[in-house]
Amino acid sequence: MSFNSFGRVFRFSTWGESHGPAIGAVVDGCPPGLTLSEADLQPWLDKRRPGQSRFTTQRREPDEVRILSGVFEGRTTGTPIALQIENVDQRSKDYSEVAAKYRPGHADYAYDAKYGFRDPRGGGRSSARETASRVAAGGVARLVIPEVRIRAYLVELGGIAIDRNRFDDAEIDNNPFFCPDAIVAAEWEAALDAARKSGSSLGAVVECVASGVPAGWGAPLYAKLDGELAAAMMSINAVKGVEIGDGFGAARLRGEENADPMCPGANGPTFLSNHAGGVAGGISTGQEVVVRIALKPTSSILTPVETVTREGQATEIVTKGRHDPCVGIRAAPVAEAMMALVLADQKLLHRAQIG
Amino acid sequence: MSFNSFGRVFRFSTWGESHGPAIGAVVDGCPPGLTLSEADLQPWLDKRRPGQSRFTTQRREPDEVRILSGVFEGRTTGTPIALQIENVDQRSKDYSEVAAKYRPGHADYAYDAKYGFRDPRGGGRSSARETASRVAAGGVARLVIPEVRIRAYLVELGGIAIDRNRFDDAEIDNNPFFCPDAIVAAEWEAALDAARKSGSSLGAVVECVASGVPAGWGAPLYAKLDGELAAAMMSINAVKGVEIGDGFGAARLRGEENADPMCPGANGPTFLSNHAGGVAGGISTGQEVVVRIALKPTSSILTPVETVTREGQATEIVTKGRHDPCVGIRAAPVAEAMMALVLADQKLLHRAQIG
Amino acid sequence: MSFNSFGRVFRFSTWGESHGPAIGAVVDGCPPGLTLSEADLQPWLDKRRPGQSRFTTQRREPDEVRILSGVFEGRTTGTPIALQIENVDQRSKDYSEVAAKYRPGHADYAYDAKYGFRDPRGGGRSSARETASRVAAGGVARLVIPEVRIRAYLVELGGIAIDRNRFDDAEIDNNPFFCPDAIVAAEWEAALDAARKSGSSLGAVVECVASGVPAGWGAPLYAKLDGELAAAMMSINAVKGVEIGDGFGAARLRGEENADPMCPGANGPTFLSNHAGGVAGGISTGQEVVVRIALKPTSSILTPVETVTREGQATEIVTKGRHDPCVGIRAAPVAEAMMALVLADQKLLHRAQIG
Amino acid sequence: MSFNSFGRVFRFSTWGESHGPAIGAVVDGCPPGLTLSEADLQPWLDKRRPGQSRFTTQRREPDEVRILSGVFEGRTTGTPIALQIENVDQRSKDYSEVAAKYRPGHADYAYDAKYGFRDPRGGGRSSARETASRVAAGGVARLVIPEVRIRAYLVELGGIAIDRNRFDDAEIDNNPFFCPDAIVAAEWEAALDAARKSGSSLGAVVECVASGVPAGWGAPLYAKLDGELAAAMMSINAVKGVEIGDGFGAARLRGEENADPMCPGANGPTFLSNHAGGVAGGISTGQEVVVRIALKPTSSILTPVETVTREGQATEIVTKGRHDPCVGIRAAPVAEAMMALVLADQKLLHRAQIG
Repeated sequence: MSFNSFGRVFRFSTWGESHGPAIGAVVDGCPPGLTLSEADLQPWLDKRRPGQSRFTTQRREPDEVRILSGVFEGRTTGTPIALQIENVDQRSKDYSEVAAKYRPGHADYAYDAKYGFRDPRGGGRSSARETASRVAAGGVARLVIPEVRIRAYLVELGGIAIDRNRFDDAEIDNNPFFCPDAIVAAEWEAALDAARKSGSSLGAVVECVASGVPAGWGAPLYAKLDGELAAAMMSINAVKGVEIGDGFGAARLRGEENADPMCPGANGPTFLSNHAGGVAGGISTGQEVVVRIALKPTSSILTPVETVTREGQATEIVTKGRHDPCVGIRAAPVAEAMMALVLADQKLLHRAQIG
Repeated sequence: MSFNSFGRVFRFSTWGESHGPAIGAVVDGCPPGLTLSEADLQPWLDKRRPGQSRFTTQRREPDEVRILSGVFEGRTTGTPIALQIENVDQRSKDYSEVAAKYRPGHADYAYDAKYGFRDPRGGGRSSARETASRVAAGGVARLVIPEVRIRAYLVELGGIAIDRNRFDDAEIDNNPFFCPDAIVAAEWEAALDAARKSGSSLGAVVECVASGVPAGWGAPLYAKLDGELAAAMMSINAVKGVEIGDGFGAARLRGEENADPMCPGANGPTFLSNHAGGVAGGISTGQEVVVRIALKPTSSILTPVETVTREGQATEIVTKGRHDPCVGIRAAPVAEAMMALVLADQKLLHRAQIG
Repeated sequence: MSFNSFGRVFRFSTWGESHGPAIGAVVDGCPPGLTLSEADLQPWLDKRRPGQSRFTTQRREPDEVRILSGVFEGRTTGTPIALQIENVDQRSKDYSEVAAKYRPGHADYAYDAKYGFRDPRGGGRSSARETASRVAAGGVARLVIPEVRIRAYLVELGGIAIDRNRFDDAEIDNNPFFCPDAIVAAEWEAALDAARKSGSSLGAVVECVASGVPAGWGAPLYAKLDGELAAAMMSINAVKGVEIGDGFGAARLRGEENADPMCPGANGPTFLSNHAGGVAGGISTGQEVVVRIALKPTSSILTPVETVTREGQATEIVTKGRHDPCVGIRAAPVAEAMMALVLADQKLLHRAQIG
Repeated sequence: MSFNSFGRVFRFSTWGESHGPAIGAVVDGCPPGLTLSEADLQPWLDKRRPGQSRFTTQRREPDEVRILSGVFEGRTTGTPIALQIENVDQRSKDYSEVAAKYRPGHADYAYDAKYGFRDPRGGGRSSARETASRVAAGGVARLVIPEVRIRAYLVELGGIAIDRNRFDDAEIDNNPFFCPDAIVAAEWEAALDAARKSGSSLGAVVECVASGVPAGWGAPLYAKLDGELAAAMMSINAVKGVEIGDGFGAARLRGEENADPMCPGANGPTFLSNHAGGVAGGISTGQEVVVRIALKPTSSILTPVETVTREGQATEIVTKGRHDPCVGIRAAPVAEAMMALVLADQKLLHRAQIG
């Protein structure tokens, strides 16, 4: 019921602001006896880390995670795991303009409307900086589901989609876009360079696939696997849409096209297609779990936009500073983390009820 | 934490199977003193009721709701409100084929994989019959948010989209499709008749809009308004995608196109566009809250589909019985109910934290 | 988070008022495949049923429980189990005095202070009638923990304590007081008859013991087994105190007296005493789990008490009607139910985290 | 639903082990706009701090709390408040004996039985060191309920009770026992010195009183004010019993003695006595909320006790180290913190439902 916690049995809570001294997460309900050290988490954080190409914010954060509790002699004890990441490169000296004017597309106005005031330094709590905590927590979650392999990549950037026939898993880590299609990656580079130079930004679509999920995970009706994934993914900054399997495309199919036929397989029934994205009735079917999320273009742009001051006067704003021209890129490791966190929780929930 | 409950302070739990004696919901956390009788809820159930046109299942259910607790002398007391609807027209005599074979696209196989067995009568718990309970609970939720008007309608059926220029709110209740465009409604009628006659089914896209939501509702980060809506909507049977505002379309806009500019207004700042769908940083902005959901075509079709038996043998199945050729139609009142339930909860959550 | 739900994975919610048409419970998270019918629950309800001796209220309620969902062909399906009990003998014709004046010791004033008004018929939601729903839900919980035997009995009534040397388990069901000491049972009979005739009432202490609980159940720190038991027991009407093991007596022991020494046993370590009541650090130790609860004397008495009207005028009240002269008696089966409900939940929680 | 979180809307989670690098709490759901700095929390921590007299552990911890998030320019922002306290004086070099043998009365065996192994350094997570985090969180809670004054003190130590006629609020902070009776404080000093010298320990009873709580807080039936207090208090280390108002004493009263008569008062109805301890039907009545808790004597004693090794061999143990000879003393500020945390949560819950 906490506002800043997610999960039911395997549960994490995050805290921290963009320009505070640190951010962190507390993971609760983790099974005991799992081998865990900072070295298990750091690679995931490194993947999300800013400043690794000219296509992400130039803020320099080492994003070194520390484990402050819940581990003894290298193994989880079953007690809460506190994870902490220092904010090193805050540079919040000058936030007077952001404090005084609402940036359209940002949470500024909504936060003021809700809380009466806000921490304007780097977006405060509404900054995507918080997602580093999720990625750390997601690293713990991965240890709970060793049977599952999770992979996120971009399938669209600035309206340019990949060609599924050129999909190459090995390509994903070969370019700064987590793009599985080398040819389209080059197009994205050009498009994003152009957008960046013109002071604009682009949106993206990220696909996240989990393989190895056994049939039976998911807790219908209001803790359905797809419902939990929808909530998890929609909670990521800038996400405006979530699809499972064919998603909106399924609405354009006929019944016989959309139903995934089944046939006998070596290890039980198998499916001849996966329009459902691995979930039926809110429960995993044993197929790949496929989620796609739409990310809007960053609202932090150099193009001036009409807005109002806190006092309600008309004005204009140009959002300077160090921003990702396409937040969709760094959302890929965050989507992986959220997938891991949901699946770890569902695995434990399943075990609770079914044994 | 219940699997079958939703909401945090204003919270409902549902129970019941398609062919059991009854279904119901318990609404907890409702403020006291609200005027409530069955007559306040019945109209919403009537809207969702099956058998009202040839485009929905011919199962005949009066769907009369009874209030068993939580109301004294016509007013809510602040204690749990138990709502109950009898199942009248079950006809579950012959479910042997459904019990023996998995219907592709249904939850049959997933339920067996999870629970070891299942109630096969009419889909048991996985049937959309459960949504009647939500609609009843949603009727209570509406009383908690009298300042909000909620409206759901279809914007696409069988791949045929409405023309936004012909959008007519008054038209929505004039056709069996909750279609705001009279011309396209006729096209849908033809398409759905054809699908029905050929033993097929069609998908749909439902849009649900809430107006009157004040700025400030939503509890970031993991009880964000849009996150809660995503979970709520994805929990509806057959839903495979959820969008807020421009949704996937936003991923194809540039930063300056997507940012909703602000200007001074008579009652505080207003927006010049609503790409965001009324939510920023997980908090309402005071604009219309706009959600769209994609519904797959019904899997219950007369076209034979390849499948397996419970014992894993290859076979074929034809799903006879009384089914909606397009489940998207009756999903419109359900989407309205879920919107009301989320907003009522967020209103109370906001009041808890902010006063 | 619901106000009227209890438990985390194995969770129940109750609804209903003393003089409404029915009361009920929804049990969620129950494992599938358990054999369950009304006949499994009825004996527990019969034990709590009013009107079985002159020492309990003369309200005549058959307390027949119906299962409305979650069971198919005699087995639990893993979906919510709706339990319902009709209110048959309401007699709420004349509640004008109770509505107009606050009964000292009852919840009348507090409910009005909270909700602005209340259902005065038989105490409405604050009536111990609700505990029938718990007993039904507890019957389901018992099926989840077949390894555990739960037994509650009175150890004190009207200040007269049993003699532990005469403790006879077989005696408990031989008298209307759940008293394990035949001699003191006769004293209680005399004391309670005298109290009843003089229009007064008596308090009691109930002890509830669970044997067969394995070491390891309990989820520290804020879902500790003893913490959950304390919350569960304190939620029973008229309970004003809860003790685990030696309870308040432990505060008068020295460290070496209170520590339960351990020694090797046939099936692992055993203990030489059980001052701790089977719980250490919030986790079961494998010993008997021992809880004691104090119940105040019924506030519904024929002796006039000074009070005020709803309008705040001084007056007097005599609470006529059908009341238990000692609510502690019927609290014994309710305490057993709460013990079962907590243990079932902790078993599943343990299984979730530990496997 | 987290194991290590408490509260519903105003909610805190704690993490950390006795000898880890730090401990902490995350407070979620705090209203925005409250003035908060470390200086507001430190006095409460100082009250609980060890090493202030010879009657508490000699471990030297400055217990300096840092606020890492949720505060901007001295005011709470409505986002999670992360509180952190470094462990300075761990001295965990030699924990081999504790790791190898179970200390009777401690959580050692239960933790091993649950988790398979444990952090033996200073008791790990089961150490009362964790209560420093609660006290810090409780300091935030106090800001949410400025209308309430909370006071905890010992009423019994080593079986020696205070004389209520000598109760002097001003005396409480004048002695190292939070004792409101100067004469009995001297007796406690002698008794505790004797126990300490003989390698033993003593139990205690703490009373905690909240005044200024308005009528109407509490969420029946399973989030009742007294139920929440019972869970909160029972979660404190070494607590074995909880009473509200007259508690177990109420079980020995007659109905007419126990009912608190009401009469008209200047500000609405008032009560002529407070046997109920300020709670009726789970809701506050506007009287003082009175809770008493029993604390067992510390199990860490120098007297040898029979026990077993991890391998199940018979042995003896003497628990050396720095321990409180009466843990009841430092439980007083912890009880105050838990009272504040429960009341803050109930205030916000009330506001959510009632407005």
